[in-house]
Amino acid sequence: MYFKVAKKNFYNALSVAARAISTFSPLPAFSGIKIDAKEDCLVLTGSDSDVSIQTKLVKSEDCNLEIRDMGSIVIEAKYILEIVRKINADEIEFEVIDGCSTKISGNTAEFRINGMRANEYPAIDFSKPKECFTMEEDILRRIILQTSFATSDKETRPVLTGVNFACDGTTLNCVATDSYRLAKKTIEIKESLNFNITVPAKSLQEVVKTLEDEGEVEIAVNDKKAQFIINDTIVQTRLIDGVYPETNRLIPLTFDYELTIDAKDLLDAIDRASFIKNDGVSVIKFSLSEDECVLSSKSVEVGSSTEVLNSASFVGNRLEISCNGRYVFDAIKALSGSLVKFSLCGEMKPFIIQSVDDASVLQLVLPVRTYA
Amino acid sequence: MYFKVAKKNFYNALSVAARAISTFSPLPAFSGIKIDAKEDCLVLTGSDSDVSIQTKLVKSEDCNLEIRDMGSIVIEAKYILEIVRKINADEIEFEVIDGCSTKISGNTAEFRINGMRANEYPAIDFSKPKECFTMEEDILRRIILQTSFATSDKETRPVLTGVNFACDGTTLNCVATDSYRLAKKTIEIKESLNFNITVPAKSLQEVVKTLEDEGEVEIAVNDKKAQFIINDTIVQTRLIDGVYPETNRLIPLTFDYELTIDAKDLLDAIDRASFIKNDGVSVIKFSLSEDECVLSSKSVEVGSSTEVLNSASFVGNRLEISCNGRYVFDAIKALSGSLVKFSLCGEMKPFIIQSVDDASVLQLVLPVRTYA
Repeated sequence: MYFKVAKKNFYNALSVAARAISTFSPLPAFSGIKIDAKEDCLVLTGSDSDVSIQTKLVKSEDCNLEIRDMGSIVIEAKYILEIVRKINADEIEFEVIDGCSTKISGNTAEFRINGMRANEYPAIDFSKPKECFTMEEDILRRIILQTSFATSDKETRPVLTGVNFACDGTTLNCVATDSYRLAKKTIEIKESLNFNITVPAKSLQEVVKTLEDEGEVEIAVNDKKAQFIINDTIVQTRLIDGVYPETNRLIPLTFDYELTIDAKDLLDAIDRASFIKNDGVSVIKFSLSEDECVLSSKSVEVGSSTEVLNSASFVGNRLEISCNGRYVFDAIKALSGSLVKFSLCGEMKPFIIQSVDDASVLQLVLPVRTYA
Repeated sequence: MYFKVAKKNFYNALSVAARAISTFSPLPAFSGIKIDAKEDCLVLTGSDSDVSIQTKLVKSEDCNLEIRDMGSIVIEAKYILEIVRKINADEIEFEVIDGCSTKISGNTAEFRINGMRANEYPAIDFSKPKECFTMEEDILRRIILQTSFATSDKETRPVLTGVNFACDGTTLNCVATDSYRLAKKTIEIKESLNFNITVPAKSLQEVVKTLEDEGEVEIAVNDKKAQFIINDTIVQTRLIDGVYPETNRLIPLTFDYELTIDAKDLLDAIDRASFIKNDGVSVIKFSLSEDECVLSSKSVEVGSSTEVLNSASFVGNRLEISCNGRYVFDAIKALSGSLVKFSLCGEMKPFIIQSVDDASVLQLVLPVRTYA
């Protein structure tokens, strides 16, 4: 196995494949990147068994790829990334010398690294599932950023650690909830499909990192796995087993109160009060009336804060409602637009936060009871 | 106690005092900043008992300080820093309401924080020691950065965890060693003094952070403490007890070999090989001759590297010498100038690294034996 390749392109491709690799590999082989030198391309594979990333470096003028001997080898990801990043040369030579020992050289520096045989690397099936649709990369990025933060980080109900993608015809609903808050994004797709899958939030983070500024992403799903295909890269993830809870009935449809406020003003105010915690949680209280909107928080140990929200306008009877400040903060952060609208039903009823400019995303937060 | 002050100046002064505060305070009071409102200034004090910082905010047009009621209070450092940093106002109002409860307000936001009584804060003696001299802030910064990295991080010989400042007349020798390497900087001072003190490296880090771009620093020492006085700020540190070892006899005076090399080239080459470790240590080997200088490293587990050092020139017989790559890297980093000179005596003898432009700093490294 022997090839020459432009350092920059090789490094970028290695970085993409390495993203799937976890610091604590379930198998020793999974700490490595599998490098296949084929007739006209290099195929680089990284995996932690949940997420697998395969990326191709195809012969082109840009990457100067020259493959003299085909073959496969697995090299510890951290070593090869370090070598290729730091080597002071435009071109890298890569040669497997006797089955495992691999020579990587550029300019006056030469490294010999102990690799692993490719047949010790688990076989990963990258075949493409049947249900397949496309969307703009930027739309997928927004779906993930606007929902995945609301997934649960506890393994007690595994299905809540993922984002549910449910498609019935051309409407795709993307929902995440940890049972205290919920984020939902709805978009229309071109294809008419029928599926209901839950993708681990962790896998979606890797998808976001792989997305480029523009272009399309192809998404292919079956009941076992989902593939996100971005140019020459496939990010493949297992799905979370189990039926995702029916969340529609949680979302109220009629409201008695409405608060409109500048998003940045409210984020700043919540942030200012965030150090006032009770048992590690920053609980904020909105005291709302048509005359004045006040945000306050209190902790016996630390002290208290009060702030008049000058940019707020409120419609409805006097209302006091308390909730986890972090949840409101995350929810507003995930919305676009400068003005946000809270739609409320009462002191202890879930409320909705939306951008006034974009009805495709909905954030729901459950209030908490306070005794202050 | 009541004062008004410009947010920016108050925040900057709080940040300076807070630097002395450690996350794990030996005393609860030491997690706070003591704020004394005097007739014409605020005095802010932070301490972890080893290092204490006192900074003054004197009435001036810039800081808009207005003191209505004098008094003292201790406020948890993390809370007051967070409040003052995030408050959306140019001016902060600060008022102690009933002995402990403190109101801090700006714009539409108001905080009430539970403070601690000033008499619970340990008395710290900031009186100025007698032996006193001055130097440019930049010179002190260079002394610290060029020596303190070589101190020991092990508490087995406490005296080695500090930098030794020894003054005999107008020559000040600053030495740090962990017994495997040594850094020494020599400067001339204007005053003629006689002292020998060892300052904890950790305290010197706080001094560096407090130094400004230009101006003078006054240093006052006795056998108990050292003070670094920078404008309105005093950084005071305890000293390390114990006799500092006599290090002069360790430094060779005659040499048989000399290697001159571009500092950046060598740093890059060492960095490239740094992932090749044996028991966590990256050992590098120089193979030096007048024809060719080669840097190599080897590990049974990882593999090996070899690199020809094109910018090197060597005078002397053929020599192979191995050492901890990190030590050479740190030593060169601490030198100024683009060209460095290694003066060597033999395979197992300590060698010296100096900048060809600056003889005031000397870095000494002990070689290691390799069996490869």
